[in-house]
Amino acid sequence: MELHKFYSSLAIRNDRKIVLLLIDGLGGLSHKDYSYKTELEYANHPNLDRLASIGSTGMLTPVLHGVTPGSGPAHLALFGLDPISFQIGRGVLEALGIGIVPEPTDVLARGNFCTVDDQGYIIDRRAGRISTLVSEERLTLLRDIRLPGSEIELHAVRDHRFVLRLKGMDLSGDIANTDPGTIFEKPKAAKALTPRAESTASLVNTFVEQALDRLKGQPPANALVLRGFSMLPNISGLQELYGLRSAALAIYPMYKGLARAVGMEILECGQTFSDQLRALETHWERYDYFFIHYKYTDSSGEDGDFLSKVNHIETLDNSIEPLVRLDPAVLAITGDHSTPAALKSHSWHPIPLLLVSPTCRRDGSAAFTETVCARGALGHIESKYLMGLLLAHALRLEKFGA
Amino acid sequence: MELHKFYSSLAIRNDRKIVLLLIDGLGGLSHKDYSYKTELEYANHPNLDRLASIGSTGMLTPVLHGVTPGSGPAHLALFGLDPISFQIGRGVLEALGIGIVPEPTDVLARGNFCTVDDQGYIIDRRAGRISTLVSEERLTLLRDIRLPGSEIELHAVRDHRFVLRLKGMDLSGDIANTDPGTIFEKPKAAKALTPRAESTASLVNTFVEQALDRLKGQPPANALVLRGFSMLPNISGLQELYGLRSAALAIYPMYKGLARAVGMEILECGQTFSDQLRALETHWERYDYFFIHYKYTDSSGEDGDFLSKVNHIETLDNSIEPLVRLDPAVLAITGDHSTPAALKSHSWHPIPLLLVSPTCRRDGSAAFTETVCARGALGHIESKYLMGLLLAHALRLEKFGA
Repeated sequence: MELHKFYSSLAIRNDRKIVLLLIDGLGGLSHKDYSYKTELEYANHPNLDRLASIGSTGMLTPVLHGVTPGSGPAHLALFGLDPISFQIGRGVLEALGIGIVPEPTDVLARGNFCTVDDQGYIIDRRAGRISTLVSEERLTLLRDIRLPGSEIELHAVRDHRFVLRLKGMDLSGDIANTDPGTIFEKPKAAKALTPRAESTASLVNTFVEQALDRLKGQPPANALVLRGFSMLPNISGLQELYGLRSAALAIYPMYKGLARAVGMEILECGQTFSDQLRALETHWERYDYFFIHYKYTDSSGEDGDFLSKVNHIETLDNSIEPLVRLDPAVLAITGDHSTPAALKSHSWHPIPLLLVSPTCRRDGSAAFTETVCARGALGHIESKYLMGLLLAHALRLEKFGA
Repeated sequence: MELHKFYSSLAIRNDRKIVLLLIDGLGGLSHKDYSYKTELEYANHPNLDRLASIGSTGMLTPVLHGVTPGSGPAHLALFGLDPISFQIGRGVLEALGIGIVPEPTDVLARGNFCTVDDQGYIIDRRAGRISTLVSEERLTLLRDIRLPGSEIELHAVRDHRFVLRLKGMDLSGDIANTDPGTIFEKPKAAKALTPRAESTASLVNTFVEQALDRLKGQPPANALVLRGFSMLPNISGLQELYGLRSAALAIYPMYKGLARAVGMEILECGQTFSDQLRALETHWERYDYFFIHYKYTDSSGEDGDFLSKVNHIETLDNSIEPLVRLDPAVLAITGDHSTPAALKSHSWHPIPLLLVSPTCRRDGSAAFTETVCARGALGHIESKYLMGLLLAHALRLEKFGA
């Protein structure tokens, strides 16, 4: 049985509240310029340490040992799904990233404007990196293209990039890229990878033909290529699976989209962590499960800025009191993956996990750091099991077997 | 998806080098005669301890909790294969152990000379443990037996034991033992366990009939039985899976054979650990992944000789400097399984693991011992995941999902 269905089969309802505070890219790496400490070890965070002293700690492996996850699989795992079975395609992810919440019947693709020569061969795959504004103008030329029985939406992303959203019935995302991935070739026709996708491929080709016609003679953006055709994976929501009324307090579109994909409501929550916690207080009574997404630790890790990541951890620690005061039945504080400043990228290293609940086994953790959590009572577990742990600590899973 | 294929799907190439130093039977057991210390705790190994202080430690479970592995599964797991899915049959293992490197199309079996009475009933399953020399003479009588469309090779092992290798096309190892496993029965005919194996079984029976004819009237070795029919599992090599140019520095034939089974090149490397490290230096530039096999800890564990195992650990520690000086991007030091002197055999106990790399999270391990490693930052993982970790630390795995 699939993991989430197994947990679902045991789920019962009550009024105990669960909060998942996700500190994006939380895990760090020993840094030679900072006495071989990690960002979390170097930062001063007395409030998190105090929570560790009354909670249980452990480590999460996002996907599998050694595997560095993108945001998609890292979040789906934390929401209780097997991140290898449920993959979010690049078209869908690009759409989520700009705030589009696709329907399960939509097909999404990433688009690039490009430059072709007189014979139709691509000579610049990025159309000279035209501005978003120019892209927007070009998209306007294409928006009234009509397709039989379905509808096209076009959304500018940044520079030469856009998202194509195809809405209709019986669509399929099993379509190969039209982007040849190199210059001196022509954009390819959309090709169905499965019989089910034949009609969708034909719609895409109709769109592309008309689009090329309209873009002709207007270099540098005189053609387009598409890739990453995909649909939302068929995911049941947290309400349906576990009876959880769930809500997301996320500032960035990507994370709102990922939360929406598992059925969370997206709440307005301002721009800072304190804003997010104010929104949490406001909506406290209305939901059972809150996902709070704190982005800035990941960004500074990606920038390779150790001290900025330290700073963002300290800011969070300074502002966390209102959350503690709400006294959720279960509070989990962790990350989706590691983003060590030393690597300037996501990494495969496990993520520290802190769980505070009246039902947690206090393990005497003296601090919230990677090294302490690696020795914590929760052990080292895969992220996909966290949802089961949260439900259990909220006494929301009944006994299995007699 | 199978584990190694999942890792393979993420593999990228670079020039970072990986060294796996395998200390055979490394794990030990608290011994009542030595203050309840393990061999590794009792031994003095300042160099390994120093590596632990700048690395990450953890524990490997060879197959599953409680399962004592043979050398075959223990090594395959360390090479990244699920040791339960990929089993190496006894015939193949016996062949590997005497330095035969089978082709994937060969069928291998273990053979015993035995003694039968006038009616053909077995009265001594080991033919009075005839010497290897006598065995060799008997095998000479059988070597010119010809089979239609295939070829027989016979290799003496030790005493009354030999290996039968059948070379040809469309052979199958799905054949039941001809050895009844007891005396006062006759050797059985070779019986196919699947339809595909019918023709192979018939070849084996042709061989056995002619062999019995030639051995007749020459007790004690006047008959033979065969068991453990098997073929190499169909394993992709490390080059094909991960783009790793890989080489083994192993002294004993069995380990050369296991390394060969996953596509490693077998390098000449003398008789001592220092010889092995000299060979490592010589070939350093030519490969990406080196497997160094250190045997003597296992042998002394099997002998129940605690102090000899301690000694071999100290010898290795004393000689390790040239390896450290080569400064591989990733150095993993571990065992294939535990061989506690207190048990005089392989055991199921997890194995200490030490990983040194610029990308490892230093966990402040003060020593390289079972107890320290059990609390290390890498946690407790199954051996089959080590390959993914090694690739990750060598930055040879790309991000999974966007």
